[in-house]
Amino acid sequence: MTVTAAHLSKLLQGEIEGNPEAQVERPGKIEDAGPGEITFLANLKYESFAYTTEASVILVSKDFEPKKPIKATLIRVDDVYASVAFLLDEFGGKVEAQGEVSSSSFVHESAKIGDKVSMGHFAVVEEGAEVGEGTIIFPQVFIGKNAKIGKNVILYPGVKIQHDCVVGDNCILHSNAVIGSDGFGFAPQADGTYRKIAQTGNVILEENVEVGANTTIDRATMGSTVIKAGAKLDNLIMVAHNAEIGKNTVVAAQAGFAGSSKIGNNCMIGGQAGFVGHIQIADGVKVQAQSGINKTIKEEGSAWYGSPALPYNDYLRSYAAFRRLPDMMKKMKQLERELKALKGE
Amino acid sequence: MTVTAAHLSKLLQGEIEGNPEAQVERPGKIEDAGPGEITFLANLKYESFAYTTEASVILVSKDFEPKKPIKATLIRVDDVYASVAFLLDEFGGKVEAQGEVSSSSFVHESAKIGDKVSMGHFAVVEEGAEVGEGTIIFPQVFIGKNAKIGKNVILYPGVKIQHDCVVGDNCILHSNAVIGSDGFGFAPQADGTYRKIAQTGNVILEENVEVGANTTIDRATMGSTVIKAGAKLDNLIMVAHNAEIGKNTVVAAQAGFAGSSKIGNNCMIGGQAGFVGHIQIADGVKVQAQSGINKTIKEEGSAWYGSPALPYNDYLRSYAAFRRLPDMMKKMKQLERELKALKGE
Amino acid sequence: MTVTAAHLSKLLQGEIEGNPEAQVERPGKIEDAGPGEITFLANLKYESFAYTTEASVILVSKDFEPKKPIKATLIRVDDVYASVAFLLDEFGGKVEAQGEVSSSSFVHESAKIGDKVSMGHFAVVEEGAEVGEGTIIFPQVFIGKNAKIGKNVILYPGVKIQHDCVVGDNCILHSNAVIGSDGFGFAPQADGTYRKIAQTGNVILEENVEVGANTTIDRATMGSTVIKAGAKLDNLIMVAHNAEIGKNTVVAAQAGFAGSSKIGNNCMIGGQAGFVGHIQIADGVKVQAQSGINKTIKEEGSAWYGSPALPYNDYLRSYAAFRRLPDMMKKMKQLERELKALKGE
Repeated sequence: MTVTAAHLSKLLQGEIEGNPEAQVERPGKIEDAGPGEITFLANLKYESFAYTTEASVILVSKDFEPKKPIKATLIRVDDVYASVAFLLDEFGGKVEAQGEVSSSSFVHESAKIGDKVSMGHFAVVEEGAEVGEGTIIFPQVFIGKNAKIGKNVILYPGVKIQHDCVVGDNCILHSNAVIGSDGFGFAPQADGTYRKIAQTGNVILEENVEVGANTTIDRATMGSTVIKAGAKLDNLIMVAHNAEIGKNTVVAAQAGFAGSSKIGNNCMIGGQAGFVGHIQIADGVKVQAQSGINKTIKEEGSAWYGSPALPYNDYLRSYAAFRRLPDMMKKMKQLERELKALKGE
Repeated sequence: MTVTAAHLSKLLQGEIEGNPEAQVERPGKIEDAGPGEITFLANLKYESFAYTTEASVILVSKDFEPKKPIKATLIRVDDVYASVAFLLDEFGGKVEAQGEVSSSSFVHESAKIGDKVSMGHFAVVEEGAEVGEGTIIFPQVFIGKNAKIGKNVILYPGVKIQHDCVVGDNCILHSNAVIGSDGFGFAPQADGTYRKIAQTGNVILEENVEVGANTTIDRATMGSTVIKAGAKLDNLIMVAHNAEIGKNTVVAAQAGFAGSSKIGNNCMIGGQAGFVGHIQIADGVKVQAQSGINKTIKEEGSAWYGSPALPYNDYLRSYAAFRRLPDMMKKMKQLERELKALKGE
Repeated sequence: MTVTAAHLSKLLQGEIEGNPEAQVERPGKIEDAGPGEITFLANLKYESFAYTTEASVILVSKDFEPKKPIKATLIRVDDVYASVAFLLDEFGGKVEAQGEVSSSSFVHESAKIGDKVSMGHFAVVEEGAEVGEGTIIFPQVFIGKNAKIGKNVILYPGVKIQHDCVVGDNCILHSNAVIGSDGFGFAPQADGTYRKIAQTGNVILEENVEVGANTTIDRATMGSTVIKAGAKLDNLIMVAHNAEIGKNTVVAAQAGFAGSSKIGNNCMIGGQAGFVGHIQIADGVKVQAQSGINKTIKEEGSAWYGSPALPYNDYLRSYAAFRRLPDMMKKMKQLERELKALKGE
């Protein structure tokens, strides 16, 4: 599909600068986009590429002021990222499905499969499970007994959803994610061994949740581990039993949440961050990557850093001092010497 | 199944307080349990819920002293967690299996499959492999050549056990766990490339080991990577080639063990902790979450924290001082000024 | 296969010391090798075992000087690890394959499958995909639409390669690795929700790349996420959209690379290390385990440690001072007191 810059600008309610007839076929990265490609400049780290790119069209912010001439046609928009999201949707990225259930999948006779469900080869839907209308199940997916999958869900190859778990409408689960593995619960015995505590609860993903590749969400001991509506989890994340992740909270890769931790709405959690169990985190809290949160945080919108975490700016100040510690040690010794001298020792 | 508080109290050798005829149908969390549910209070963080819960019965410790009246019937027991574990087992949580091998699984003709083995759809058992009596193999599991799986093992959907690996009796492996992937071994070459070192060993899980979802345990270069009896590994853990995890050692999610690290018995390892290779850790050692252990630890039962890890209390003391570092820097400058003034400079 | 020490020594261009007729059947670890086994001593931490081992032959460095008598025959070589790699290859470790496509796999009629390709049970090759000559595809692997797999690749059980991704010749991908899951890209909306940004790019693994078990490499938003030739990634690693890992760079387990990070050639990245997005790392950089890299590093061959990372030696010096901080605090108070006394306060 080839469209003109003018056409795109109109779609995006943008303002055009340069040749409105510039032809665009596909999107490209600003570092290496070529003729026929549309690219974008949102992060000013990449500004220098705007002056050298061979791309035909660049999306920029309405307040962007070029420091040098730019060869490409510019489309000025209010929100560059939102425009990119819109265009990528238009230009492709939609998951295609044929609404067919492969004859080499296994669907238990008691399972209820909605209209227009696609099911790939070697997928399994166990007894009593339900799959909503328009849901796309890729090959090698497992849906356990009595699990309930909503409408227009996408389950990528290798996703495992265990018995009794619930996946809301419009959720997207990436490959090899595991929903509903047993919580990690053991009662220590007098002889040093551990007795397994049966994990009788489930996992509930509300609607519009995204779960990354190889992320694991354990079932509750009793009740439910819950990922609330609109939350987005990246790859290789651990959510332990009875934890809760709030609405529209975004979690970067490799973060971990211990048992019964409750994370608020609209939080932003950095990669490789960790949370101990049985704590509550207020709405809008930001946690820097690799931080370790070991207590309840009540201040909405507060930012945290370090392991164990301190208020963000406090950590930066302490860490700046940490860098200068060896110098500080030397100064201290110097002070001691001078003081001794003064005292005539 | 509905039972009375009196019946449960007898099963648990507990003491009843309140209505012995209170009816219980299922377990629930103390935060949201309702009528007909039995819940428990072990962590006093949750004490306030005991005074407001609608649950019919609460398990509490024999020495629990309520500060307000409690509506529910109490059952007082010696060990709340052990009683919960017992009840959850009774009330459900048992994995059901039918002892049938799915016709849409693949079992090599030379494989030996014990009595009452259940095997799910699209599972694979390769040449020369053995599966012990009563073992439950869920769909999409892979068991490689000459692997040996013990009795009463549970392999959840997507587990991969590679050739020659050994899984002891009563082990439980959660979805997409990988046992026996190649160890990460490469010999640097003069031209900057790496030559792969063949990984000719295996992995041995002794009996009663639990392995979490998406956890990976690499095969040894030579010999075996060993997880000893009763060890419990949570999700997304990495165990590298030739490592050993001791008996009844418990490891929280996302921890990692580098090559040839040897962890003692009855250790407790926090989440996201890391261990360098070629070190030994004594029995009963406790490692705080996110810590980095970079040397052998010989003190049995010692506790560690930080990256690189220090003795637990030392780290806490240093970190407390770290928080006050910016103030300390100011004080130091003040001291310098005062000293200069005293010296008449 | 049994060979003599003399035969092995000749193969390795080594020098023999002891009985050249010592018989060797298989490799073993120096801690527990027995008669008929060949073992090696490279890391001097294990030297004590050389004096007690029952192994028949030990590979040692040409400059190794034993402190006690050694019973085994020694073969002295220039590079112990390279010799071990060579021998392990000779003694076994080759992946066997039969060059057959299982009738219980699914291969789309439009897919192009090269000669001597082995394909296991319940593997899937979708429309338009290509698989090169001699490639081994284990059971339960998924190869998406239009994906291109090179020659002599090994894809272990459960590997998922999504649509349009490219895997170069001689790559090895371990079980449940995921290539081409969606990048984690969302545009924040005015109402607090997030709109998914379509991820329209792909992943390219160049030749001779190794990818560990359960590692995830996300597809680019536009363009490609690239792992360059000869790079080796361990287990449970996260590579985000549009990241690049340089040639012959080695990454230990559980490390994570955020979006658009570019890692140079011949770098060595420790386990659980993390990189923020949109930074560049020079060639030959070494990053200590658990470090957090939050800015571009321009110094080739430099070494880093800490979170956020400092130059390696600076971190060690600061951390040494951190250990002594509580003492330093006490000393500071003492200085204050003395100064006050001097000033007659």
